[in-house]
Amino acid sequence: MSNIHDKAHGLEKAISESEEFQKLKSAFETVMKNPETKQMFDEFRDTQIRLQEKQMQGLEITEEEIETARKVVELVQRNQDISTLMEEEQKVNQLINDISRIITSPLEGLYGNSNNVN
Amino acid sequence: MSNIHDKAHGLEKAISESEEFQKLKSAFETVMKNPETKQMFDEFRDTQIRLQEKQMQGLEITEEEIETARKVVELVQRNQDISTLMEEEQKVNQLINDISRIITSPLEGLYGNSNNVN
Repeated sequence: MSNIHDKAHGLEKAISESEEFQKLKSAFETVMKNPETKQMFDEFRDTQIRLQEKQMQGLEITEEEIETARKVVELVQRNQDISTLMEEEQKVNQLINDISRIITSPLEGLYGNSNNVN
Repeated sequence: MSNIHDKAHGLEKAISESEEFQKLKSAFETVMKNPETKQMFDEFRDTQIRLQEKQMQGLEITEEEIETARKVVELVQRNQDISTLMEEEQKVNQLINDISRIITSPLEGLYGNSNNVN
């Protein structure tokens, strides 16, 4: 157990120091230090989170909300700093997903191809 | 990157060898080698997965389905071997959740308390 925690913290450190994470951090700071891009990005994330929450709760998403979200995405994608941040986020997410697949593979091995433990 | 993968595989190995995982494996094998408990457990998991999928797709879950699920849960909980398996599953899930929290903490640190990257 403590062996597992030590290894998990070692992995955490390797992630923090990885090129992927360092680039994400730098892209995030670039966006955050400019009040204009910060506001755009905050608005974009708030919109995404709101829609995700509604979806998870099984609530209906209105045409108006979809249109608002579409406009917000269009706006942020035109900004180079935010586009870069989103690309770096995707790379780190990919890295985290790869790691998750590796560490949950004992469960997949046990339960076979059918399903994981939930 | 290869450093991260090495560490992830080291963590995977530690999980495989952990007491939690070994107990889960043993409990799973006990349930699977008895055709009666195997069938009960398979039915239980199929029911759960079906309902989860409907929920995720935002589909309505009927009263009848809830009632069927309730009966299946009641049935499996009365079986000692399956109860043990479910307890061991919970412990391994807890372990995996703890690890996930540790390895995603650089992201939480970056994005603050508001939200993680999705």
